[in-house]
Amino acid sequence: MQIVSETRSHGGMQGVYTHASMSCQCEMTFAVFVPPQAEERPCPVLWYLSGLTCDHSNVMDKGEYRQMAAEKGIIVVCPDTSPRGENVPDEPDNWQFGSGAGFYLDAIEEPFSKNYKMYSYVVDELPELIGKNFNADMSRQSITGHSMGGHGAITIALKNPDRFKSCSAFAPICRPSDASWSKPSFEKYLGGDRSSWRQYDTCDLIADGHRFSPILVDQGDVDEWMEEGCRPQALVETAKGTDIDLTMRIQEGYDHYYPFVSTFMHEHVAWHAKHLTSK
Amino acid sequence: MQIVSETRSHGGMQGVYTHASMSCQCEMTFAVFVPPQAEERPCPVLWYLSGLTCDHSNVMDKGEYRQMAAEKGIIVVCPDTSPRGENVPDEPDNWQFGSGAGFYLDAIEEPFSKNYKMYSYVVDELPELIGKNFNADMSRQSITGHSMGGHGAITIALKNPDRFKSCSAFAPICRPSDASWSKPSFEKYLGGDRSSWRQYDTCDLIADGHRFSPILVDQGDVDEWMEEGCRPQALVETAKGTDIDLTMRIQEGYDHYYPFVSTFMHEHVAWHAKHLTSK
Repeated sequence: MQIVSETRSHGGMQGVYTHASMSCQCEMTFAVFVPPQAEERPCPVLWYLSGLTCDHSNVMDKGEYRQMAAEKGIIVVCPDTSPRGENVPDEPDNWQFGSGAGFYLDAIEEPFSKNYKMYSYVVDELPELIGKNFNADMSRQSITGHSMGGHGAITIALKNPDRFKSCSAFAPICRPSDASWSKPSFEKYLGGDRSSWRQYDTCDLIADGHRFSPILVDQGDVDEWMEEGCRPQALVETAKGTDIDLTMRIQEGYDHYYPFVSTFMHEHVAWHAKHLTSK
Repeated sequence: MQIVSETRSHGGMQGVYTHASMSCQCEMTFAVFVPPQAEERPCPVLWYLSGLTCDHSNVMDKGEYRQMAAEKGIIVVCPDTSPRGENVPDEPDNWQFGSGAGFYLDAIEEPFSKNYKMYSYVVDELPELIGKNFNADMSRQSITGHSMGGHGAITIALKNPDRFKSCSAFAPICRPSDASWSKPSFEKYLGGDRSSWRQYDTCDLIADGHRFSPILVDQGDVDEWMEEGCRPQALVETAKGTDIDLTMRIQEGYDHYYPFVSTFMHEHVAWHAKHLTSK
């Protein structure tokens, strides 16, 4: 792991790091905020998965998570959204596929299956690296994310319910196997057999019996992507009648981007902190 | 005035606007955050002047001022740092002069004197526009800024002591007539007669009898530009023995950029709010 930068902020340290990823077969960059409490004791970890077109830096610049993370003593890890580099196949003109659009899945179709292993990267490889290199209490993890990263956060929590204390999302893509943002990408990464898509679709996972609680979702009601991409109602309907503790908040007047995310970030970090620090 | 965008954030509205500036003889862009309280009553105004290379958007994205401004009911206005456009003379390869580097002064040297009137723009033209177009209580204004904008904030407060309730700065250039960042630019904007420079130099203004209180300054102690550009000690020394109420805080481990600014932004906004809302 190499240090790209380490910058003091809110009493802690905002770092950017790179490493050679085995899962993605390329150099990967990620951001970690370490709160001041980590100088004295291992701190719990909150994962933040970013949305389409983003890398590790968007939320680091615009997400406003550091103040509350520093107050509550939470490490915040922000991975990239896809493998990148000259040797990574891509469609440069397509913002919904390839670079910046890994969808937190493990591709099985050639030529993408060599690099696009974001599920394994976020679930297996990067946690190991974090546990080794930071004063992190890996027995206490929670996960959140925005848009494509909200999809990532909820699907990963549903499939790894024992690992996370809580899961939240900002305007997540709740039904990616049937949304304009993701359906063509799912086909390229996973092929035409839609049964393999179910493990990366929040609603299908719940229908197939996966469970996670608690889940907190904020969704802006003037989000231009709500009906076509996010479809919060599909999640509400699917979770209905299950024992999933889902809180879906429709936020009046908010759109899809960081002015929305940063507005509710404080509450999300504080909510995760409550679950991460309770017995 | 045209609306570029208006986005809900932290319960208020973050807007970006353009207008044809008389002072600068070009189209100028600025950002205004209007807190929710402005729906019911006129709100006081905090000016934020940005640093070299920035425009209105850097602090809007990275400054983290909205949470506290919304809590306290403060309008935050963020102007651009210079005139811009095809017809505005510039040195594109020089980040310390021209576009992004207006230094909040009124140029008197050709060919810059036609457009580079940032002092008049910020002190006269833009306040009038804000007063007309927003629910602002212009009898209650405070001013802050970062780096070159910290220089702008303090010099403008010193020259307009009755207008502002309080003044603060993040790593301001305290002695621009003698700093590597600004000296060559002062020469191009103002000419070789250094007596005309004094009205745009914080330390000279104080030496010449200008006064403003209170002033709050935060300066990181690992700021690579501290000795060469910011020179906080020059301000402390100059203010010594005057009745200026100056608080200079040297912040351990902090550098010059937005992770530093955003760390202390909450405190600055709250501090200004206290002065803006007291009788």
